[in-house]
Amino acid sequence: MSQNAPPLDPPQRLLMGPGPSAVHPRVLEALAKGTVGHLDPYYLELMDGLQGLLRQLFRTNNELTFAVSGTGSAGMEATVVNLIEPGDSMVVCINGVFGSRMAEVAERAGAVVTRVERPWGEVFSVEDLESTLEQARPKVVGIVMAETSTGAYQPLEEISRRVHEAGGLLLVDAVTSLGGVPVEVDAWGIDAIYSGTQKCLSCPPGLAPVSFSPRALEVIRSRKTKVQSWYLDASLLASYWGSNRVYHHTGPINMSYALYEALRLIHEEGLEACFARHLLHHEALAAGLAALGIGYTAQPGHRLPMLNAVAVPKGVDDAAVRRGLLEDFGIEIGGGLGAFAGKVWRIGLMGYGARTNNVLLFLAALEHLLAKQGHPFSAGSGVAAASAHYT
Amino acid sequence: MSQNAPPLDPPQRLLMGPGPSAVHPRVLEALAKGTVGHLDPYYLELMDGLQGLLRQLFRTNNELTFAVSGTGSAGMEATVVNLIEPGDSMVVCINGVFGSRMAEVAERAGAVVTRVERPWGEVFSVEDLESTLEQARPKVVGIVMAETSTGAYQPLEEISRRVHEAGGLLLVDAVTSLGGVPVEVDAWGIDAIYSGTQKCLSCPPGLAPVSFSPRALEVIRSRKTKVQSWYLDASLLASYWGSNRVYHHTGPINMSYALYEALRLIHEEGLEACFARHLLHHEALAAGLAALGIGYTAQPGHRLPMLNAVAVPKGVDDAAVRRGLLEDFGIEIGGGLGAFAGKVWRIGLMGYGARTNNVLLFLAALEHLLAKQGHPFSAGSGVAAASAHYT
Repeated sequence: MSQNAPPLDPPQRLLMGPGPSAVHPRVLEALAKGTVGHLDPYYLELMDGLQGLLRQLFRTNNELTFAVSGTGSAGMEATVVNLIEPGDSMVVCINGVFGSRMAEVAERAGAVVTRVERPWGEVFSVEDLESTLEQARPKVVGIVMAETSTGAYQPLEEISRRVHEAGGLLLVDAVTSLGGVPVEVDAWGIDAIYSGTQKCLSCPPGLAPVSFSPRALEVIRSRKTKVQSWYLDASLLASYWGSNRVYHHTGPINMSYALYEALRLIHEEGLEACFARHLLHHEALAAGLAALGIGYTAQPGHRLPMLNAVAVPKGVDDAAVRRGLLEDFGIEIGGGLGAFAGKVWRIGLMGYGARTNNVLLFLAALEHLLAKQGHPFSAGSGVAAASAHYT
Repeated sequence: MSQNAPPLDPPQRLLMGPGPSAVHPRVLEALAKGTVGHLDPYYLELMDGLQGLLRQLFRTNNELTFAVSGTGSAGMEATVVNLIEPGDSMVVCINGVFGSRMAEVAERAGAVVTRVERPWGEVFSVEDLESTLEQARPKVVGIVMAETSTGAYQPLEEISRRVHEAGGLLLVDAVTSLGGVPVEVDAWGIDAIYSGTQKCLSCPPGLAPVSFSPRALEVIRSRKTKVQSWYLDASLLASYWGSNRVYHHTGPINMSYALYEALRLIHEEGLEACFARHLLHHEALAAGLAALGIGYTAQPGHRLPMLNAVAVPKGVDDAAVRRGLLEDFGIEIGGGLGAFAGKVWRIGLMGYGARTNNVLLFLAALEHLLAKQGHPFSAGSGVAAASAHYT
């Protein structure tokens, strides 16, 4: 018997961080169904079903819509490396960690990257991009819809129009947004988009839903060089996900079961109802936090419902509170990344996690820990304010 | 409610193809445990445990041993792109589909690739490589230990010695071999190796165990260019899997549970016992097949125990037999790939699938279908021959 390998026994956690988020019990059940082969007639049907459900969620007719066999970051890399050839101009909008990551990925793919930056927590307007679009004449403009490091909620419609006027393709990071707020791929003219399973889809991490517009597909088809990644080559993947079913790699069967069930849950609830639920619990949480004197970091009017990034109150020990939440209550929230380390908490209300019980329990636990640290607030006021919002 | 999305209900299959293979019930159970965060103290401990178990299985002390968040092909790409910089010389040994794939991946990474070829089903000797090593002076030599398309079992010790004498690094595909036959990373001097979870580890597809030697790590550390893939960059991944735990991407938590449990099962059984079990059932199957007049495609003395590639008997309809196995018996085996399409069956006895019941049931089902097709054999002889092997 091997050393250092005790039986698997993960603790029960209430996942209220930036993801992975709470997984729906039906999704865990799906995950444990018996594995079939990746060319089994049943699995091929399931792939069709998955594609159909993803198209409905992305609100698109894009044929090239599927799940990359990797996490959200693999989705980012897949969209970038398929669109970019060495020497291509790409503009990346950076107002947090994930914009920076996209720029890094694009440079490694050989893009000449122009970074447009905004302070963390703020969003981009068309005006912020004007001069760069003129000068860089980008083939691709990359932007993050829901910046998980800051909680900023980026509007896309106008920017998409302007990018297309300038002859570029719009590439969108929807890792945290998909399933929590409307993502209108066709109506907004998004050319390439990626997400992850572990945010608002109530599913464990492991797959990255992606979609490419016909315009993006045309660009991919007329490449002069091969895509640098064989694993992520969209043309090869299209032959496996498409009707010819050419074997490419062995898909992650059980994770596909989980994503399928997760998407069924969303469509059972209905997209509008699902988005409304995320908003409701966000507002309740925000009311509770406000009562405790805790404010948001993202600019007003541009706050994500599913990812509440808030300032750690002055005099309060960030790490001690997060440790207390985890150890005493089994609740995970996220700390700040990069420039926000030690200064920000990131509270996720994503998918199955966006529920009344979670909001109230979290606020009660937070009040308990803040009181221990001598933070001034009226006892019970956070829970009461959130509770009032539900009536 | 969405269209075309019936409830998830995968059929029960006996997976006896080239992978995915039969998943152990304890592994399916592990998969469905509650998700924790990717920076949860429990998950960090689990990562340490996983690394320890993988080192024991790879028989290595390599610090840089971990699971890539993708399938076996992502493991191939991860090892190649970390070792190769544009313009580097790489030799790839090709005697089946997966050698060709490695050459393709290497070229996309910018390698100047020299292909050394052997007929499908045969293996390489040191002599086959001599002149190429002299001429190409490769930085890396890539070779497939268990060619899943042909069932050929490649010895590595002598080739490794010669590659090192010539100043190269040895990169090994162990996707199908790991867990089924001895893989001695340190004793054989392997510099980089990758595998997949869905073959002899009794686990669903989705992760790719990899390991890099200190020599390979040194090469990675002294690169002049960045690794073209951010997602697969071993230096970044080393910082997450190592003691500093720098956030890189959100790991596939539940798949990690599954791999952990799968590795525990192997070490509970013991490596030697596990390899002996694979050999026993292979020999029983081979005896049964021989009685039915069915022979192997790989050269004698170099046949993989876990992947039995055999010639479809003359006059027998390949597709009809495989369809009959699947539809009438729920048994999946593999057809031939590439040059072997229509001519070869690939029968997997991998991990949890390598059991007496499976061998006997498969032979009984095969006899039933061969009789229907008028293939001449003595009824019951296949099952009897295999059965005799167990006594």
